[in-house]
Amino acid sequence: MKRWVIVAGGDLEPADLKELRREDRVIAVDGGVLPLLKAELPFDRAVGDFDTLSGEGVLALKKRGIRVEELPAEKDVTDTQYAVEQALAEGAGEILILGALGGSRFDHSLANVFLLEKVESAGVRGEIRNSHNRLRLYTGNGREMIVERGPFQYVSLLPLSERVEDLHLKGFRYPLAGATLLRSDPMGISNKVIAPRATIRASSGRLLVVESSD
Amino acid sequence: MKRWVIVAGGDLEPADLKELRREDRVIAVDGGVLPLLKAELPFDRAVGDFDTLSGEGVLALKKRGIRVEELPAEKDVTDTQYAVEQALAEGAGEILILGALGGSRFDHSLANVFLLEKVESAGVRGEIRNSHNRLRLYTGNGREMIVERGPFQYVSLLPLSERVEDLHLKGFRYPLAGATLLRSDPMGISNKVIAPRATIRASSGRLLVVESSD
Repeated sequence: MKRWVIVAGGDLEPADLKELRREDRVIAVDGGVLPLLKAELPFDRAVGDFDTLSGEGVLALKKRGIRVEELPAEKDVTDTQYAVEQALAEGAGEILILGALGGSRFDHSLANVFLLEKVESAGVRGEIRNSHNRLRLYTGNGREMIVERGPFQYVSLLPLSERVEDLHLKGFRYPLAGATLLRSDPMGISNKVIAPRATIRASSGRLLVVESSD
Repeated sequence: MKRWVIVAGGDLEPADLKELRREDRVIAVDGGVLPLLKAELPFDRAVGDFDTLSGEGVLALKKRGIRVEELPAEKDVTDTQYAVEQALAEGAGEILILGALGGSRFDHSLANVFLLEKVESAGVRGEIRNSHNRLRLYTGNGREMIVERGPFQYVSLLPLSERVEDLHLKGFRYPLAGATLLRSDPMGISNKVIAPRATIRASSGRLLVVESSD
């Protein structure tokens, strides 16, 4: 079960591409082809309407043997959503989305975050990452999610469902035992991991787990 | 019923401050004081832990007669959330949040978006704005929300609740009649207003209405 990495067209720093491993399958979405070409990193597929890429650019991709899917500009799903659906349909074991945040349009960032739900619903681990942020989704079903003490300074817990019930946090600076969090009243911002491995557990609800640094 | 404007510490372009009207009450949140001071715009209050402002800076604010509330760095709510709660407690008729998006930490942007729910729950109109985006919340209760054809090129409709039922869009390039939208399957990205005034109506659910330009 391979990891698929989707390189979307949002803000991307060269350091973000260090996440790529040789064995990953990589889909570049629209403007996401440019940083990959610049860094001379291989990728498997390019999808998008390519309004930011010339016809010559598209031809150059094809000559390199990269499968190019030119999508119409007007469609029901975003290019990134299309790429996620492809990865799921082809049996991705895990999906990492780079270039998913930032850029001028906030609707695209938000739609990408909500896509983590689609990934999770298919039983696949999803992650959005850039140099300052790592976003994962925890679905409260009694199981434990582990947050390792790592490069990120803060961990914020933001309910995506209206509420998250019976939330237990262990190994955090601000632990919780059986708490309820509401989406409309974010109380879980800027927690910190103080144990080598902290754990999150809840009985119901969906929680965005955002690790970040200033 | 005055409009309160909260200037948070996220990305802020000088043009964003053009939204301010003389009659607004203005709260600067932490780093949000800096662009206001630079633009020599008056404000009523400054709240935050001011880790980005020197003690001298805080003193200078007080000398200007600005009420300064120094919040502890460790607290349950974010500085922006505290400011929103103050505005609501003091009877704000409308709340506009500037500097709410961008910055390196995505958790802060997302928590600010979710704050629109707190504002809406108090029966107050809330809005987040920067030069490329305008975010409002529509609560599906059968009433109409108007989106005027204006400076923004796109309108995206993103369910914040799990689903939005019986959605009707009129005056849009892609109209809808009685549709259901799911948060996990964003289908409402990049719609366009084609009438002078378009309308949104749904029977239940909460919908983020994001107007944006590239």
